[in-house]
Amino acid sequence: MTQREGYTLGQLAEALGATLEGDPRRLVIGVAPLESAGPDQVSFLTNARYADAAKASRAGAFVAGADAAGLPAPVLRVRAPQQALVDLLNLFHPPPTVVPGIHPTAVVAADARIDPTAAIGAHAVVEAGARIGPRTHVAPLVYIGAGVEVGEDCALGPHVALLAGVRLGRRVLVHPGAVLGADGFGFAFDGSQHRKVPQTGGVLVEDDVEIGANTTIDRATFGDTVIRRGTKIDNLVQIGHNVEVGEHSILVAQVGVSGSSRLGRGVVLAGQVGIADHVTVGDGVLVGAQGGVPSSLEAGGKFLGTPARPMLEAKRIMAAETRLPELLRRVRALERALEALTGQRLPERESERD
Amino acid sequence: MTQREGYTLGQLAEALGATLEGDPRRLVIGVAPLESAGPDQVSFLTNARYADAAKASRAGAFVAGADAAGLPAPVLRVRAPQQALVDLLNLFHPPPTVVPGIHPTAVVAADARIDPTAAIGAHAVVEAGARIGPRTHVAPLVYIGAGVEVGEDCALGPHVALLAGVRLGRRVLVHPGAVLGADGFGFAFDGSQHRKVPQTGGVLVEDDVEIGANTTIDRATFGDTVIRRGTKIDNLVQIGHNVEVGEHSILVAQVGVSGSSRLGRGVVLAGQVGIADHVTVGDGVLVGAQGGVPSSLEAGGKFLGTPARPMLEAKRIMAAETRLPELLRRVRALERALEALTGQRLPERESERD
Amino acid sequence: MTQREGYTLGQLAEALGATLEGDPRRLVIGVAPLESAGPDQVSFLTNARYADAAKASRAGAFVAGADAAGLPAPVLRVRAPQQALVDLLNLFHPPPTVVPGIHPTAVVAADARIDPTAAIGAHAVVEAGARIGPRTHVAPLVYIGAGVEVGEDCALGPHVALLAGVRLGRRVLVHPGAVLGADGFGFAFDGSQHRKVPQTGGVLVEDDVEIGANTTIDRATFGDTVIRRGTKIDNLVQIGHNVEVGEHSILVAQVGVSGSSRLGRGVVLAGQVGIADHVTVGDGVLVGAQGGVPSSLEAGGKFLGTPARPMLEAKRIMAAETRLPELLRRVRALERALEALTGQRLPERESERD
Repeated sequence: MTQREGYTLGQLAEALGATLEGDPRRLVIGVAPLESAGPDQVSFLTNARYADAAKASRAGAFVAGADAAGLPAPVLRVRAPQQALVDLLNLFHPPPTVVPGIHPTAVVAADARIDPTAAIGAHAVVEAGARIGPRTHVAPLVYIGAGVEVGEDCALGPHVALLAGVRLGRRVLVHPGAVLGADGFGFAFDGSQHRKVPQTGGVLVEDDVEIGANTTIDRATFGDTVIRRGTKIDNLVQIGHNVEVGEHSILVAQVGVSGSSRLGRGVVLAGQVGIADHVTVGDGVLVGAQGGVPSSLEAGGKFLGTPARPMLEAKRIMAAETRLPELLRRVRALERALEALTGQRLPERESERD
Repeated sequence: MTQREGYTLGQLAEALGATLEGDPRRLVIGVAPLESAGPDQVSFLTNARYADAAKASRAGAFVAGADAAGLPAPVLRVRAPQQALVDLLNLFHPPPTVVPGIHPTAVVAADARIDPTAAIGAHAVVEAGARIGPRTHVAPLVYIGAGVEVGEDCALGPHVALLAGVRLGRRVLVHPGAVLGADGFGFAFDGSQHRKVPQTGGVLVEDDVEIGANTTIDRATFGDTVIRRGTKIDNLVQIGHNVEVGEHSILVAQVGVSGSSRLGRGVVLAGQVGIADHVTVGDGVLVGAQGGVPSSLEAGGKFLGTPARPMLEAKRIMAAETRLPELLRRVRALERALEALTGQRLPERESERD
Repeated sequence: MTQREGYTLGQLAEALGATLEGDPRRLVIGVAPLESAGPDQVSFLTNARYADAAKASRAGAFVAGADAAGLPAPVLRVRAPQQALVDLLNLFHPPPTVVPGIHPTAVVAADARIDPTAAIGAHAVVEAGARIGPRTHVAPLVYIGAGVEVGEDCALGPHVALLAGVRLGRRVLVHPGAVLGADGFGFAFDGSQHRKVPQTGGVLVEDDVEIGANTTIDRATFGDTVIRRGTKIDNLVQIGHNVEVGEHSILVAQVGVSGSSRLGRGVVLAGQVGIADHVTVGDGVLVGAQGGVPSSLEAGGKFLGTPARPMLEAKRIMAAETRLPELLRRVRALERALEALTGQRLPERESERD
């Protein structure tokens, strides 16, 4: 059973804990979405919305939940199709094996401790006292600063920079071009110029965190900027100094979190959201795309807009805004009618500018 | 006729297809804007707004359209001054010639196919099976992943990363630090943690595309993230997985396009615009700066604001917002006047919070 | 008196110009905030808000202003505690000494002029004719283009790219991944495609500027994009071609400034602000987070929102927006009451859509 030769449906049923409806000897060699899957591929129905697409699909088999009926090929029945899809993709696309060793062009300080099962790519630079854990893959052209610690089973993409004071836990993925541990943005104006406040802290990233391409996470002024375990950060995100992001949170692309703010556990910030400094965002909060958060948000709420308001209220305001030009006309008509009725000018009419 | 010695106006008239009004033997050695051009430089008048600046200019000659009168030096008359300016700049600033060859410090896999007319810079890394086309310039410190294909006459700036699964067409420019092919941002929450959905697709960039510095374009979950030919993408732009950007579109700096959205042909997104996921933006749509697009937009429209509304409507709403505090006062005055008149309380007054 | 052994309070009092209240022989070995400082560390009270935290602190000494009373350990009294904190941090965390020399793996053009007191890191690339000034530190994996000039006492982080045409003054810090001198975003549509306008200018960065990680500053079309002295730019900021940023300005993370705009002296742009092209922002202007600036702003003003309005007005509008759904109901009630009173339909009622 190798990746190259594919899997039989019987093998897949066993690996996924699925109930197979169909021939267990049938072979599939890949995974594809409903529209593009061919007879030698397995597809998946993770949402009832796509039931028609599934019925029209040419896929050789389907992963589907209990309620999907009328599928035109064998079905691997599972309780949680989305999770089964992850398992399926991991079967067909296992993470590449790390070939241990230090590329001869890498520049590694004599006292850096590289686990013998780790891989250091071409032209990577590892400074004094850094530690790289077992099975961790450091891509070509990565920079690892003095004393940096990287745990086991991590992967750092090309051009990643981890500056002195950064520590990564286990199974942390850092995508290309991300910068961890650059100076926080702190200055004290002395009346004639902005003096730099030395940034003496570090960055702590716990287990199972993923950090997107060209994202920046600044070192703390004191102590650590902290990303708690299981949190996933997308591309081009900015995390300021002394921020703490709680466990299992999701920060979508181009989000910015200003210095010293604290996000709780399970927070979701959609794309381009901005969080002001020294703000607390409670557990489980969701902020919709482009939201601006000037002050703290209570746990569990959903928010939208700038300034971020409870989502229902924000949507009601957005709907009302659409009617604002009409509302101006209606108020003017009311004023005229009332003035005609009373023969008296309304006190606020003078301020009208049209 | 070399760049160092400049061009005579006669030579320029011929190269630009211009009608010369003045001495064809006069020599100019560079191009400069109206305010800074000196007598040995040619300047240009591409907009009637700048007619006064042109009359005051010390330039030795002008490129101008049919209607520009009273210019104080020889004129190269053209039909399209903006296009002629591009031609002129290309004459004085031709793209640097690519000196073929692989720098001795570059690390190139044995089975990578580098065209003999291509150039690979110092400390670049080219992985197994990659292909680099004729006359393509790969700057120093670039990373090119396994199996990546780069067509002819491309230029990749320093620190660009093209990960496995990326294919570029012809004449594609990728500016420094851009990352193509990092994992899309896809996770499935299993009740206790976010499980990574393996991103198995690639990125396809067609001919004549330009991609800005530190921009990120993610690989697809399945299939390809696609940038169609002629599209220009500015710096720090985020393109999510499975996005398709149509031909000849313009994405200005810090735009974000979420996963699986499709932009049509000739779309213009101004700076910091955000597009939600699974949205379709029709051909020729323009979205003004900082606009937020939560749902699909019809072809040909101009939109503004968050949520993006038709531009005229959005501007009317913005104008009306300015008068909102005044409107509150006017409504209160109306309520008081009417209550005074009728002696009865209005039913909605109770909800008033001031 | 070395960093390793700490300082006595007497030494600190002298270095800070402070009046010591306590034992001058007491030794402290580091600086820490009120909550985490221990008896061998000095802490600081820079804001009366934290007076209670100070009283509860275990710190061995405090830096504080004239008015702080009741502190539980020796006090170094100073006039400006914030400035004294900067001095204190510089005493305990002096910038690393630059060890001169060119790393053997760096690729430096024969005619590049590297000051003998400068340091060029591993795998850095310095192209023809570039000049690196005294005591400047070029980190590993940096790219310095042809003819680039870097002044004295600068520091360039890993993966910084300075392209041809960039000139830096003295004491300029460029954080990892920043790109200076990539092409400005300029195209001329010829009816069928966007033709690239060659970007022939450069980037001029004056003394004492700091540039954040993964920030991009584009070269000018003609002349220079200019960052004046003392200005501090955070991470992931975009500065378009031909922009000029005045002296001692502050641009917070993810700000975008479009082409040809001019910011005055002492301007503050909070996070995610966007400035349109060809706009003038006067001296001392402050724009709040996520503000959008479509047109010029007068000196000295504070602005907020999109479009940016004077801050008080913007806040009044935001407060009024909250009441917009209620306002709609109140106007409807007014209309009904007035119609009931007059027996006549109001002229604008017809346009009502609910």
